[in-house]
Amino acid sequence: MSEVAYVNGRYVPTRDATVNVEDRGYQFADGVYEVIAVAGSRLVDLEPHLTRLESSLSNLEIEWPCSARVLKIILAQLVKRNRLENGIVYLQITRGVASRNHAFPIAKTRPSLVVTTSRTAGPSAKAFSEGVKVVTMPKNRWRRPDIKSVSLLPNVLAKQFAVLNGAFETWFVDSEQGITEGSSTNAWIVVEGQEIITRPLGHDILAGITRMKLMELAQEGNLRVTERIFTVDEALNAEEAFITSTTSFVMPVINIDGKKIGSGKPGDVTKNLLALYQEHFAKSEKL
Amino acid sequence: MSEVAYVNGRYVPTRDATVNVEDRGYQFADGVYEVIAVAGSRLVDLEPHLTRLESSLSNLEIEWPCSARVLKIILAQLVKRNRLENGIVYLQITRGVASRNHAFPIAKTRPSLVVTTSRTAGPSAKAFSEGVKVVTMPKNRWRRPDIKSVSLLPNVLAKQFAVLNGAFETWFVDSEQGITEGSSTNAWIVVEGQEIITRPLGHDILAGITRMKLMELAQEGNLRVTERIFTVDEALNAEEAFITSTTSFVMPVINIDGKKIGSGKPGDVTKNLLALYQEHFAKSEKL
Repeated sequence: MSEVAYVNGRYVPTRDATVNVEDRGYQFADGVYEVIAVAGSRLVDLEPHLTRLESSLSNLEIEWPCSARVLKIILAQLVKRNRLENGIVYLQITRGVASRNHAFPIAKTRPSLVVTTSRTAGPSAKAFSEGVKVVTMPKNRWRRPDIKSVSLLPNVLAKQFAVLNGAFETWFVDSEQGITEGSSTNAWIVVEGQEIITRPLGHDILAGITRMKLMELAQEGNLRVTERIFTVDEALNAEEAFITSTTSFVMPVINIDGKKIGSGKPGDVTKNLLALYQEHFAKSEKL
Repeated sequence: MSEVAYVNGRYVPTRDATVNVEDRGYQFADGVYEVIAVAGSRLVDLEPHLTRLESSLSNLEIEWPCSARVLKIILAQLVKRNRLENGIVYLQITRGVASRNHAFPIAKTRPSLVVTTSRTAGPSAKAFSEGVKVVTMPKNRWRRPDIKSVSLLPNVLAKQFAVLNGAFETWFVDSEQGITEGSSTNAWIVVEGQEIITRPLGHDILAGITRMKLMELAQEGNLRVTERIFTVDEALNAEEAFITSTTSFVMPVINIDGKKIGSGKPGDVTKNLLALYQEHFAKSEKL
């Protein structure tokens, strides 16, 4: 919290960075966000993050608070001012400040833009080398998890459910026993014959940037990725499992709901994918 | 916005009332709220609102930011400082400020308390005398709408859907065609024989305070209220329909999805219930 944040045109110490109590982000969760990894002071996969941001804003009919060009300058400025080498940039855009009323404000509002950084180290080396546990629960989110909104209370409760069960993540299960996604990650399994499976994009999951990049990298490496719905049973009997996200990269899953997956150790396909992703990560272009 | 707000121990002009950008209410919708009507400077049904607040906080394991006794003093102070005679008090409690991470913060946080007031007149006299239109849509909310959380983006979109369709409210429909609730109201119909029907309490609807009070008033008046699930078809063929909420009182619904309900005018049972509620409203005890 001793870093500098950007709030609506000003760079201020994060501890003094504030928004109005009638910001619709605060009263209605009426806003969207992105988390972008920073590696060697470079913003990793910035362009696809901005493309997804555009999609989230457009779905909610929230205007850009500034051009994408200016936003990039702000992100670069914040990385520079905070002398951030490795960590994340968090950006949030809400519909702005208005007298409280559920419907979109009739008078034009100025969308709020908040950007913060964090030196978070992400998961430990031990987590990557030993793998993590996952638990499942019935999906509790709203109808449009594909929109990256700050309406995240269900995700908070799902992540807390993982913590209480000694797990790293919770996977959501739909009414047909299909696994949709994690509370803040995408879900993957590897089945017999080294087939890599993840749920297809749709309204029911977030289109993860790491998910997308990993699919590209897998295909370049001639690995077979299938986008299809998979069930809890399939996951429990998979040879390997893993999760992806901006901060978890490609994290091996070695236990689901108390059942050991495969050998109970990170599998070779997962380790290979993690290596491919780390290579991509290290190569990110200078902003 | 020229009123005074209360924010974490201070009374400040609402336009200067701010919370930190890392307040979990802003980043995760990790908070709850109540809207309490003010009539003749009295807080209407304050006790049941505080009971529901306790339930919301307890469900999310958020601690009270102060005792209920102190909260009542703050609410009364704000009504007094703003010389508020008629309108609403809005109060929001979030889990507080913490470095961004989905799970509950490990270090104890101080919950944030924000209170604002509004002189909103509520619906027009015309709306009450002529009735309003309602549209329906598949329910889009998360699994626990009974918790009065600020994770309200689905409700925002549902209310906006009503506005775009020239309606006052949107009713959510579950997968069995049952009507659950409105985006910010409870849903009721009156069928043959003057039977008044509303959905039973459960995880799928908010336990409206106006809903509860109206049930008490109806029973005192020997009117027959049945708590049961009702479908869109039943609603379309009902003799009367109405919605209840803190700000909408008992609002007649005269059209659902473009179909006239009953005679297309507010029905007698609804008008009777509105009169009973207005009488109750006027009698509220002085804080």
